[in-house]
Amino acid sequence: MTQDRPGIVNCALYVAGRRVRDIGIDEIGAALKQEDSFVWLGLYEPDEELMRRVQQQFGLHDLAVEDAHKAHQRPKVETFDDSLFVVLRTAQIIDGSAHFGETHVFVGARYVVSVRHGASQSYRPARAACEAAPHLLEKGTGFVLYALMDFVVDHYFPVAEALEDQLTALEDGIFSGHFDRASTEAIYAIKRDLVELRRAVAPIVDMCSALMGFRMALVPGPIKPYFRDVQDHALHISEAIDAMREMLSTALQVNLSLASMRQNDVTKALAGWGAILAVPTMVFGVYGMNFENMPELHWHYGYETIVALTGAACLLLHRRLKRAGWL
Amino acid sequence: MTQDRPGIVNCALYVAGRRVRDIGIDEIGAALKQEDSFVWLGLYEPDEELMRRVQQQFGLHDLAVEDAHKAHQRPKVETFDDSLFVVLRTAQIIDGSAHFGETHVFVGARYVVSVRHGASQSYRPARAACEAAPHLLEKGTGFVLYALMDFVVDHYFPVAEALEDQLTALEDGIFSGHFDRASTEAIYAIKRDLVELRRAVAPIVDMCSALMGFRMALVPGPIKPYFRDVQDHALHISEAIDAMREMLSTALQVNLSLASMRQNDVTKALAGWGAILAVPTMVFGVYGMNFENMPELHWHYGYETIVALTGAACLLLHRRLKRAGWL
Amino acid sequence: MTQDRPGIVNCALYVAGRRVRDIGIDEIGAALKQEDSFVWLGLYEPDEELMRRVQQQFGLHDLAVEDAHKAHQRPKVETFDDSLFVVLRTAQIIDGSAHFGETHVFVGARYVVSVRHGASQSYRPARAACEAAPHLLEKGTGFVLYALMDFVVDHYFPVAEALEDQLTALEDGIFSGHFDRASTEAIYAIKRDLVELRRAVAPIVDMCSALMGFRMALVPGPIKPYFRDVQDHALHISEAIDAMREMLSTALQVNLSLASMRQNDVTKALAGWGAILAVPTMVFGVYGMNFENMPELHWHYGYETIVALTGAACLLLHRRLKRAGWL
Amino acid sequence: MTQDRPGIVNCALYVAGRRVRDIGIDEIGAALKQEDSFVWLGLYEPDEELMRRVQQQFGLHDLAVEDAHKAHQRPKVETFDDSLFVVLRTAQIIDGSAHFGETHVFVGARYVVSVRHGASQSYRPARAACEAAPHLLEKGTGFVLYALMDFVVDHYFPVAEALEDQLTALEDGIFSGHFDRASTEAIYAIKRDLVELRRAVAPIVDMCSALMGFRMALVPGPIKPYFRDVQDHALHISEAIDAMREMLSTALQVNLSLASMRQNDVTKALAGWGAILAVPTMVFGVYGMNFENMPELHWHYGYETIVALTGAACLLLHRRLKRAGWL
Amino acid sequence: MTQDRPGIVNCALYVAGRRVRDIGIDEIGAALKQEDSFVWLGLYEPDEELMRRVQQQFGLHDLAVEDAHKAHQRPKVETFDDSLFVVLRTAQIIDGSAHFGETHVFVGARYVVSVRHGASQSYRPARAACEAAPHLLEKGTGFVLYALMDFVVDHYFPVAEALEDQLTALEDGIFSGHFDRASTEAIYAIKRDLVELRRAVAPIVDMCSALMGFRMALVPGPIKPYFRDVQDHALHISEAIDAMREMLSTALQVNLSLASMRQNDVTKALAGWGAILAVPTMVFGVYGMNFENMPELHWHYGYETIVALTGAACLLLHRRLKRAGWL
Repeated sequence: MTQDRPGIVNCALYVAGRRVRDIGIDEIGAALKQEDSFVWLGLYEPDEELMRRVQQQFGLHDLAVEDAHKAHQRPKVETFDDSLFVVLRTAQIIDGSAHFGETHVFVGARYVVSVRHGASQSYRPARAACEAAPHLLEKGTGFVLYALMDFVVDHYFPVAEALEDQLTALEDGIFSGHFDRASTEAIYAIKRDLVELRRAVAPIVDMCSALMGFRMALVPGPIKPYFRDVQDHALHISEAIDAMREMLSTALQVNLSLASMRQNDVTKALAGWGAILAVPTMVFGVYGMNFENMPELHWHYGYETIVALTGAACLLLHRRLKRAGWL
Repeated sequence: MTQDRPGIVNCALYVAGRRVRDIGIDEIGAALKQEDSFVWLGLYEPDEELMRRVQQQFGLHDLAVEDAHKAHQRPKVETFDDSLFVVLRTAQIIDGSAHFGETHVFVGARYVVSVRHGASQSYRPARAACEAAPHLLEKGTGFVLYALMDFVVDHYFPVAEALEDQLTALEDGIFSGHFDRASTEAIYAIKRDLVELRRAVAPIVDMCSALMGFRMALVPGPIKPYFRDVQDHALHISEAIDAMREMLSTALQVNLSLASMRQNDVTKALAGWGAILAVPTMVFGVYGMNFENMPELHWHYGYETIVALTGAACLLLHRRLKRAGWL
Repeated sequence: MTQDRPGIVNCALYVAGRRVRDIGIDEIGAALKQEDSFVWLGLYEPDEELMRRVQQQFGLHDLAVEDAHKAHQRPKVETFDDSLFVVLRTAQIIDGSAHFGETHVFVGARYVVSVRHGASQSYRPARAACEAAPHLLEKGTGFVLYALMDFVVDHYFPVAEALEDQLTALEDGIFSGHFDRASTEAIYAIKRDLVELRRAVAPIVDMCSALMGFRMALVPGPIKPYFRDVQDHALHISEAIDAMREMLSTALQVNLSLASMRQNDVTKALAGWGAILAVPTMVFGVYGMNFENMPELHWHYGYETIVALTGAACLLLHRRLKRAGWL
Repeated sequence: MTQDRPGIVNCALYVAGRRVRDIGIDEIGAALKQEDSFVWLGLYEPDEELMRRVQQQFGLHDLAVEDAHKAHQRPKVETFDDSLFVVLRTAQIIDGSAHFGETHVFVGARYVVSVRHGASQSYRPARAACEAAPHLLEKGTGFVLYALMDFVVDHYFPVAEALEDQLTALEDGIFSGHFDRASTEAIYAIKRDLVELRRAVAPIVDMCSALMGFRMALVPGPIKPYFRDVQDHALHISEAIDAMREMLSTALQVNLSLASMRQNDVTKALAGWGAILAVPTMVFGVYGMNFENMPELHWHYGYETIVALTGAACLLLHRRLKRAGWL
Repeated sequence: MTQDRPGIVNCALYVAGRRVRDIGIDEIGAALKQEDSFVWLGLYEPDEELMRRVQQQFGLHDLAVEDAHKAHQRPKVETFDDSLFVVLRTAQIIDGSAHFGETHVFVGARYVVSVRHGASQSYRPARAACEAAPHLLEKGTGFVLYALMDFVVDHYFPVAEALEDQLTALEDGIFSGHFDRASTEAIYAIKRDLVELRRAVAPIVDMCSALMGFRMALVPGPIKPYFRDVQDHALHISEAIDAMREMLSTALQVNLSLASMRQNDVTKALAGWGAILAVPTMVFGVYGMNFENMPELHWHYGYETIVALTGAACLLLHRRLKRAGWL
């Protein structure tokens, strides 16, 4: 049984591309004596003591293990003599916003150790996919690394799509005029997720180049096109992110422009109605004066006439202002 | 008959640069035994089963075929041993806005398979152009690839021009003052099309460099200047897009500036008219007071005099405000 | 006579760096048999038929001639075996705004063909300059190409200076406060000309690098410093354009800031005057009430006292608001 | 005793990776005769005379010593024959804002001299860490340089985190609506600290590359991964800074947008209440007129009726404006 | 006497790193026959005739001399066979704003000719510094070039500091609220000086790289660290300029934000006071109506009661609006 303690998700021995059996951590040394074999160990947030045992089993470099303890590593590939230390950032949409986790992968000729931290999916599907392609898995641990990276990168797509959907909803909001404070907050939130996602995706491109270019035997020729495929997917997402970032900043500017227009409309309406109201104010003011000699005051229908004329003047002014676009 | 099933647009055998005859997919293996010959197969949104048969006939790489299934690939050239997998994004103006499709091209020494998806024109004219130049077509399948890329890139020009026309219309709108909400939406729409078009065009430049630099025999020396020509056209459109993007963002800023000026004009007019109206309000207020001893109220022409003086004061103020630019 | 048909501006035979005589197009083949000679043919918007004859005489590449037909090529240098095809964009200030034309130059070891399109000056002065330096002209057709490029680049300077003058006028406008709609349109127009001019100038830098680096004999060692000089001028203009672009966008932002300040001033004035007017409105309202028992109404100088006190209050308020910067 | 004068913090002799004893500056020459030994001298703002003695002891280059006198050097690595001159900028958060100091390190095969200026922590912990790893310290002075750089870079993290906390507080302020002048000043202050921090961190990346690539023996193979680790940390902070800069500029734009919306709300409220007030103003104006024949004036409940109707009209208008979003 | 004509500032013969004597231009040819000697000629805005004599004496290249005549060259290093032509832009603060001049330096193995134009300081201090270091001066004319470049670059520092002081003054203005039209103009002026200064400084970096990399003997090994030092200073100023540019554009944005807030405050105050004034307007309007039957009018203290109640209502409203932040 590999689940011999919390932190260990899976630990299996592979010979010639086929899974032979699950093994315990302490059997690893003995198991690896068999030719053409490797061990694939999956950990989830292991404690320090477990990491120390793993380090001893596989002879991992101090610096790599130290990094693996600390959170918030940047995605990278580091080579230590004949082994690799790979850091990946995993992404998931939870409740409409992006959450990020971290995976560290130690790869040697005879072992792969993957360590998951925070928001991330189980690598069980990646392991299954590997085991379904023994002709590639027998090329060695490089293919396992590919499977993990491919799995991580493939999970960026739904995140990018969710952000794209949010952007589309925003656009609709801006142009329908129902753009409010919440939408502006949404712009900020999308921007933050995009910036974060880009920090996860962008380094993948160079990491794949590095992995394809390494002179060591971990990534043999027939595996290289697979890393190029991962790289291509990463580029695709990178470009989609850049396009979204550009549209988002245009959206902000366009929204400012529209707000300025709306402001103008309101001020114009204010001015227009002010002008209309000025007419009766003026007229009523005139006839509120206490001059002794104001002939209109003595007309029989003076009151009605003046009120009617004032109303007519207001209507006329209203129509003219409406036509001029002030109301 | 090549139209032996839906999805297949055209399938012909070429020998020494000349079209010999249309053939069925299953005859291809036999046909290619002839020296100096190649097959050009055109597909439109083929189903999975057809793609599998095509893959078997030509020995296409799994990763390439997988990519060809998925939509929204980014433009790229990928080499697999002695064959190429090329992704292109096609563009068309439909009802005033840009629409994009995708074309995948598999190129080997003895075959070209083009697969169209979504909005794109038929490659019949490109095929005709090739067949009209047998002295170039006999250089091999590289020239077919050129013809397809040239056809795709040439169709970017009307799209870029349509966007340029829309931009010009916008500029006219901004400076004529008839700039409204619809124009602001138009800025956003043009920007989106430009961003999308750039994602289609920009990779072509590097793709052509890669195709001209390949050590393999698919693009022989005399064909290289043709790819340089395609590259040059792509650069031309790229630069036009960049110029448009820059003008568009200037247009947004200029529009904000003009809106701010208009706002200022409206507020000034509001203030100016407010000042003019304050005069009669004040005067009429004075003579509406109920003091016992107000000599003017008892003048015979007091009413007329006061109204006339007030009117004159308003006219004077109006003229001075107009001269000062507040009205 | 070289002016044997419309489109031909000049056609002369040069031997050992000196002009020998004008010749007709059809004599060219024979003339070039002479050692150390070359032909310099100048065309202005030639028709297709003429271009075809020229192509035959000099064996120009199909792609180059095709490009030369189409308008709106981007500036570039293309090599075809032992000949060059160079595209330049020419610029002129006509009525205060920049106009652009195109020049195509075909250069072989024994010929130079220059084709002018649209707004551009005659190359007569460039030809005269060449003929005045026979010790350089005898180095071959590379020097003619230099003379043409130098002439084109030198004519960018007055265009850049005109735009710089327009920018200076704008700055004066912004800071003097006489900044209006026309100035904002001017910002846009200058930006457009700058973007266009940059598209003409920027590629020259790389073109010169390419011409200096070519392994072929068209640009021999002693001519290279001349191309470096052209490159340096192009860089100079490029940098001036970049500086102007940066200042222009700062001008836009500064103008928006100033407009916002002016807006604030107007609103403050509006508020300030509103406050002053509120005093008499209030007071006159009080004494317009119809209460039976209002002692002030019966004072002998009640009216005069109240009006005078109100006036004094207004003056006081006016002074305080002025000091507080609201008026 | 090494504390033989102000300016000297620490001066010790190391043999085979182990600290042997503290020594005075003038004993250094003699002490270094011992094989496999080096001296590590720590200075804090030394005066010119002291620097001159140090320069003589170790044969430091004039230019490096001159630089070490001047404040505000940029971070860099300079090689002088067989020695290095390294400039680092140190950062600390003091009272909520970032403060920066400078450290100069002279590294030779047999000596390390570190000179601290301004805000910086003592390097005692770095020295302790070195002495705790004698197997690495015996690789030579390169490891001491690593320890110092690692110490400096590790102290950037709390600074970056403090700025991130300030940014988060700002975001909360913007979206809660309690965004005021102080918040805007905070944006500016954070931006200034970010710009300054980036100037400290960004050069570290290239400096580490240079140190890992040097052909000289100061940084031997086993020490290189340590510099790569420092480089990685510097990259991490750089990327965090870039992300913060981007979010900060988005925050500024979003805030401007929100301010524009709030402005609109206020203007709308102003207009809405103006409209409501216009009703009684109008009505009371009507019945303030002095016409002889106004029937309503003579009704018994005329006054109460009119006031009640006016109040009802105001309530109605209020409800409709509220529903339309103007109040 | 070297001051044999206007334009010549200084002309001296140096042998083995030591100044031997001042000489006239026409003696130069003879003087240079001495081994290990060179001539250093300093000119200030020479006329064409003088330049022609200098050109003949030293055999300067036509293109370089032509450039030296024209104003507004960009900073550059050009090599002509075994000589260099260097253009530098000099900067000075005069009356608070930056002024720029130009210096051209012709360097051969046996001569240095420096030509100053426009705003620039005399190179007498640079000459004195050279003569104080004969052990470096004997390395040849490369050290003279260093001394001139170092002198020019060192004079950028006070210019950058003056601009930094102006920026600090601006920041204080923005946040103290005393930000006015003059401050906005100052932003523009600083930006212009920064753009100009960057055009002077930025090319120095590449120029130093070129000078350190040249294969020719003009800059021998021991002189190279000195050029690296100049390069480092140029980088330092470049980075300071970039930081200032970034802060300046943030200042513009922040200022716009603050202006928008102030605008909001003013509008709110306008609305708040309007609301307070509406109360008496309403009340006084009520009692200005001429209804026959208005009981309050007949109360003995009706007038006093109503005025007092109105005043109380206003005070209450004032307090509530103040608490809500509208006043």
